[in-house]
Amino acid sequence: MICTLHLRYIHTHSKSLTSTMRNYLIILALLISSQTFSQKAIQGFTEETVMKEFTLEEKFDSYLKAENLDQWMKYLSGHPHHLGSAMGKQYAEWIRDQFKSWGYDATIETYKVLFPTPKVRILEMTAPTKYTARLAEPSLKEDATSGQTREQLPVYHGFSPDGDVTAELVFVGYGVPADYDELDKLGIDVKGKIVIAKYGGSWRGIKPKVAQEKGAIGCIIYSDPKDDGYFQGDVYPKGAYRSSLGAQRGSVLDLPVRPGDPLTPNIGATKEAKRIERAQADNLINIPVIPIGYEDALPLLSALGGPVAPAYMRGALPLTYHVGPGPVRVHLKLEFNWNLVDCHNVIARLTGSELPDEWVVRGNHHDAWVNGATDPVSGIVVLMEEARAVGELVKSGWKPKRTIIYCGWDGEEPGLIGSTEWVEQYAEELQQKVVAYINSDGNGRGFLYAEGSHTLEQMVSDIARDVIDPQTNVSVLERKKSALAAHASDVKTKKEILNAPSISIDALGSGSDYSPFIQHLGIPAINISYGGEDGGGEYHSIYDSYALYKRFKDPKFDYGIALAKTAGRATLRLVNATVLPFDFTSFSKTVNGYVSEVSTLLENMRTSTEVEDQMIQENRYQLASDPTKTFVQSQAKGPVPFLNFSELLNAVATLEKSSDNYAALIKANPNPGSNLAPLNKLLFTAEQNLIVDAGLPRRPWFKHTIYAPGYYTGYGVKTLPGIREGIEERNWNEAQQQIEIVAKNIVQYSKQIDKAAALLKLK
Amino acid sequence: MICTLHLRYIHTHSKSLTSTMRNYLIILALLISSQTFSQKAIQGFTEETVMKEFTLEEKFDSYLKAENLDQWMKYLSGHPHHLGSAMGKQYAEWIRDQFKSWGYDATIETYKVLFPTPKVRILEMTAPTKYTARLAEPSLKEDATSGQTREQLPVYHGFSPDGDVTAELVFVGYGVPADYDELDKLGIDVKGKIVIAKYGGSWRGIKPKVAQEKGAIGCIIYSDPKDDGYFQGDVYPKGAYRSSLGAQRGSVLDLPVRPGDPLTPNIGATKEAKRIERAQADNLINIPVIPIGYEDALPLLSALGGPVAPAYMRGALPLTYHVGPGPVRVHLKLEFNWNLVDCHNVIARLTGSELPDEWVVRGNHHDAWVNGATDPVSGIVVLMEEARAVGELVKSGWKPKRTIIYCGWDGEEPGLIGSTEWVEQYAEELQQKVVAYINSDGNGRGFLYAEGSHTLEQMVSDIARDVIDPQTNVSVLERKKSALAAHASDVKTKKEILNAPSISIDALGSGSDYSPFIQHLGIPAINISYGGEDGGGEYHSIYDSYALYKRFKDPKFDYGIALAKTAGRATLRLVNATVLPFDFTSFSKTVNGYVSEVSTLLENMRTSTEVEDQMIQENRYQLASDPTKTFVQSQAKGPVPFLNFSELLNAVATLEKSSDNYAALIKANPNPGSNLAPLNKLLFTAEQNLIVDAGLPRRPWFKHTIYAPGYYTGYGVKTLPGIREGIEERNWNEAQQQIEIVAKNIVQYSKQIDKAAALLKLK
Repeated sequence: MICTLHLRYIHTHSKSLTSTMRNYLIILALLISSQTFSQKAIQGFTEETVMKEFTLEEKFDSYLKAENLDQWMKYLSGHPHHLGSAMGKQYAEWIRDQFKSWGYDATIETYKVLFPTPKVRILEMTAPTKYTARLAEPSLKEDATSGQTREQLPVYHGFSPDGDVTAELVFVGYGVPADYDELDKLGIDVKGKIVIAKYGGSWRGIKPKVAQEKGAIGCIIYSDPKDDGYFQGDVYPKGAYRSSLGAQRGSVLDLPVRPGDPLTPNIGATKEAKRIERAQADNLINIPVIPIGYEDALPLLSALGGPVAPAYMRGALPLTYHVGPGPVRVHLKLEFNWNLVDCHNVIARLTGSELPDEWVVRGNHHDAWVNGATDPVSGIVVLMEEARAVGELVKSGWKPKRTIIYCGWDGEEPGLIGSTEWVEQYAEELQQKVVAYINSDGNGRGFLYAEGSHTLEQMVSDIARDVIDPQTNVSVLERKKSALAAHASDVKTKKEILNAPSISIDALGSGSDYSPFIQHLGIPAINISYGGEDGGGEYHSIYDSYALYKRFKDPKFDYGIALAKTAGRATLRLVNATVLPFDFTSFSKTVNGYVSEVSTLLENMRTSTEVEDQMIQENRYQLASDPTKTFVQSQAKGPVPFLNFSELLNAVATLEKSSDNYAALIKANPNPGSNLAPLNKLLFTAEQNLIVDAGLPRRPWFKHTIYAPGYYTGYGVKTLPGIREGIEERNWNEAQQQIEIVAKNIVQYSKQIDKAAALLKLK
Repeated sequence: MICTLHLRYIHTHSKSLTSTMRNYLIILALLISSQTFSQKAIQGFTEETVMKEFTLEEKFDSYLKAENLDQWMKYLSGHPHHLGSAMGKQYAEWIRDQFKSWGYDATIETYKVLFPTPKVRILEMTAPTKYTARLAEPSLKEDATSGQTREQLPVYHGFSPDGDVTAELVFVGYGVPADYDELDKLGIDVKGKIVIAKYGGSWRGIKPKVAQEKGAIGCIIYSDPKDDGYFQGDVYPKGAYRSSLGAQRGSVLDLPVRPGDPLTPNIGATKEAKRIERAQADNLINIPVIPIGYEDALPLLSALGGPVAPAYMRGALPLTYHVGPGPVRVHLKLEFNWNLVDCHNVIARLTGSELPDEWVVRGNHHDAWVNGATDPVSGIVVLMEEARAVGELVKSGWKPKRTIIYCGWDGEEPGLIGSTEWVEQYAEELQQKVVAYINSDGNGRGFLYAEGSHTLEQMVSDIARDVIDPQTNVSVLERKKSALAAHASDVKTKKEILNAPSISIDALGSGSDYSPFIQHLGIPAINISYGGEDGGGEYHSIYDSYALYKRFKDPKFDYGIALAKTAGRATLRLVNATVLPFDFTSFSKTVNGYVSEVSTLLENMRTSTEVEDQMIQENRYQLASDPTKTFVQSQAKGPVPFLNFSELLNAVATLEKSSDNYAALIKANPNPGSNLAPLNKLLFTAEQNLIVDAGLPRRPWFKHTIYAPGYYTGYGVKTLPGIREGIEERNWNEAQQQIEIVAKNIVQYSKQIDKAAALLKLK
């Protein structure tokens, strides 16, 4: 049935394929479909329940309609709808009403949150020549909504402070710590200067944060065409890439320290909530910062003097990149309305018939920087279609075992605000009840991307095996494996990917609404999307529009449907599973890998520091440098000590034993009968053993000891963050302490697995 | 003495150094100078002769005058002086007269060689819009000689054929075979098309050669600013880098097949020589080709359609790189004067007092594409200053033991013509008499670069230890080691470099006049220069001028003097050595490394082919590609066989034994007395055992089985070329045959070392 259903995609989508290839694909599809349901297993389902589940999923699929995604996107991206806007409220209410019409108990939960919007934005070059930055994206006749100037938020960075600064300009590459190390070697200091950084290389908020740490007084972030513009592909409207004045709005809240409303740390920002002063907030930066397009950056960068930038820092503008400082001086003046605005989360419930207090939460934000067809509308419409199909299943007589909660988050763009406030408000209850959180954000054409708790890795692989790729008619698992193998850098990895039956998932960093669930509360989470064949530069611009999406992203919403099938299966399987499909062996293997990584990291640092310090002591870098140019020798770093990993290694060995034992028992005894409820509770709360009350060093809100966004990478994940960042920052004592903390967590976690195993034995 | 002499450079050159650093450098210099002559050895000299040699070299150094280099460069780059020009002849005669005035027996030896110069050059875009390429470099007021338009050769490629073609344009990246593999995947065929390739990634002549093999009918080569222009640094005249209409002249003679006059293969192109027809020449390409600047390339590349070029192919022009074909059509019309012109080699001899039939040959070309201040004048003036200083030594009573021959080659630029014809004419005598050939070409500020026969590696290291870097006052060996270590990609290599007492030298490919000596005759050769701190884009343009050299290359000729000291020592040591300083253990180790490389290459190809073929058979690349875009699957390549390396491994083991044995004996017995003459003859003719009469597959002129320019890289060396290219091209039978040929050569070579060793035993 799956096969027949999907064969139509071959005829509608493979116009560019030769007929030989098409035949080949049909044969391949038939071969794959010959692996019938009966041969396939799903973790958490018994032989009796698995067939029922497959039939249910087939029915679910049959309800999904691409036309809905299209119509709803057209409506929901019809107008700008940022946090606090009238349209944002209207859309939230409309979404709520849709849920109601499908049989959900749907409400809007509103918070009062800080959200600055611009009053004054001036960026000008005052020397050596005058130039006033346009700071505006032009309307295009090819893009109907791009002209909604009155409703659009202008180009700015959310949570930049007010400021009025004038200083010499310094180009700092991506503006991450490594770039400043290179500038140090050139004798360039940014103290009292304004820096200009390229987008990329880290999450944007890292750039002003590091600049501030280095003493800069202002920050400009521009989109270099190398990373985001003509170098990548034809620019809009000819192609989808960022045009010369396209600029990337975005938040510069210090997300790796704490997402959510700056004024209500750790508590829900209800109307009555006790608020701190802005000055007390730990996640606000202090220097003004603004994003600009490359047309606005060109006059500034062209006029910069000083040394030529190191080759790796240069972009694709037609100029020689110099770092400055000066002779360029810039004046940056920013003022904002620092208002408290309403943040409207849409929460829709379908109460479980058997286990109402076990909740599967599925979320996607609805707020956008501007029209947000891709980000987030392409995701929220999929979530809605899943919910509608589930509503249809209910109408047809099916009852969910567990409770499903669909969430349409507001205020994600300025800093995961809606989800964070909700999670903070209901923290205790969520920790008691939420089985897992399933997130999406935007979606496009291409390959499956999945990240999350590694206990859910096998579930994701099982789902990927069961969802058919709309363009090629093989499973999205096989398509993903093909892409991973094609892009693997070495033969060994290629071979491993080809020969593995499943795929591994990446760890979660930050950048979307899963963050509060997993990293603050220790609730298992996954994040899913399709993409990779939808390249473009519309991100956080006025051109993230329905018009662009229909031309370049997922024109027929095939991958919208694929995402609905994927996230829908995740939801349904978690809702229906007898025993929740948590796989501790995947987690154990992954953590084992992380431990190897950090100990190898330390080893490599030891070897390289020894040689680097020899280089410095023998004056080698000085001798290798051009004496007519400034070269400032780095300081020798001193020997890297050996750390005691024994407790952690023992813990990981314990974990391996516990998870293998549980895996063997659950295989032998897939239905533990009367122990089911306590067993499931132990399973879904296990991950909470991995959080620590004190949180990570210097950022107590982040409590997960295995996964966190990097302090200096932002969205990018750091696994075993306390240990890894301790080592990276050469904070040996802290690294040692963190080793012990993680070891204790893992032992605790293993004990909970042992408890679960004991329930299986007791049957 | 050396130390005191060089301390002055610290004061004149270290203005940008802090005083702490300056003190550090002075202390370092004193430490180094405390290693006195008496502690240092030179291979080939006995304890008695080494002090004499050091004293002689000190005296030699004391004669060297930077002012001469400066004055002579001003004169010799005062006018364009390409092969066949009146100025070229005038300069050759002046150089000859200088040699005469210093006591040399100097003559001009003239050949009649084919040298095409342009009559018609038209490049125009005929669709979708009209554009006529300017094909001219503008004169600059900042550069006095840039306005000598009447005397300049215009922008063209030497040995492009006449042609008049119009076709659609295809962008082919660097235009090397790997680029066409990528284009194949995109379904792009260049048959009947004109290709446009970027300079770089290979020697220029490879681009039209490969284009022709692929069926293209014309070729344009442009300088992309990523590799050669504003991306690298400020453009001329602000900086030294190539400006928008700067274009790189150059030869497209098929050098990896055969350098030298196309009409007189294997024989000297004397007036009377029997000539073949142009159509019979094996080193002429058949499609017209022209170089252009990026300003001329921009309109063409901007208008190209078709797929976006793979990321690695893109350059730094402000556009989205598409590959075409079309809608751009171009018309390329080229006509040349196919004249025989005079090629004037300057040959200056100083006959040896003891061993007149053992010749040390030192050469540098004198012809330029235009004014050629860097290429070749910066080199020829150094060679002249060495010769003048040697003349002074003779005047002061010193007599060279062996004969020295200084050569100023003509016609190097169009294809190593002067040197090749001379070598071909005197082949037999040269093989009997030449001890070694020492080449230079251009020179600049920075680090020592040395390539050559590995039997001379230890000699080069000894010299590098004894020449002091003018900017830092450490030896050029230590400075080079510092640079190598600073740029090494991994810690292990860094450590090895730091802890090694010597440096290794690279193997010789092609691109200068050493090629006929080593690769055609098997005469040991080295090529030496300084550079790395003299970056610019003047190469083969009208801006390779005295004005540019004085601003950006080696303003005070410090490195001209350093090169004179380096090449001077090489000459003097080879001339004066008791036993010639050939070190077979270096060669043995190096060849051992090459053998490991080629067997690893085969192993890696086996593993990767297996996986790649699996990828193809499982349709993985197709599945990983975007179905809306054309993707043509490659053919599976089939298994890589095991080759029999045993004969080669045995040969290398024999070589190791022979060379170790010789090394032990010569150490014990550095002066073999009466056997000296036959011993030295065995030493300097040993390398001739490494050549084969039949030459390399498909290029019989290249006879050396260890070193050759790559058939598809041009200048870039391929060591063990027959074996390596056989494997790379998957020509397994040929690779196997070549393994056996090389093995036989090495055994033969080892026997000659054994004969030399026997003479030491017989003492």
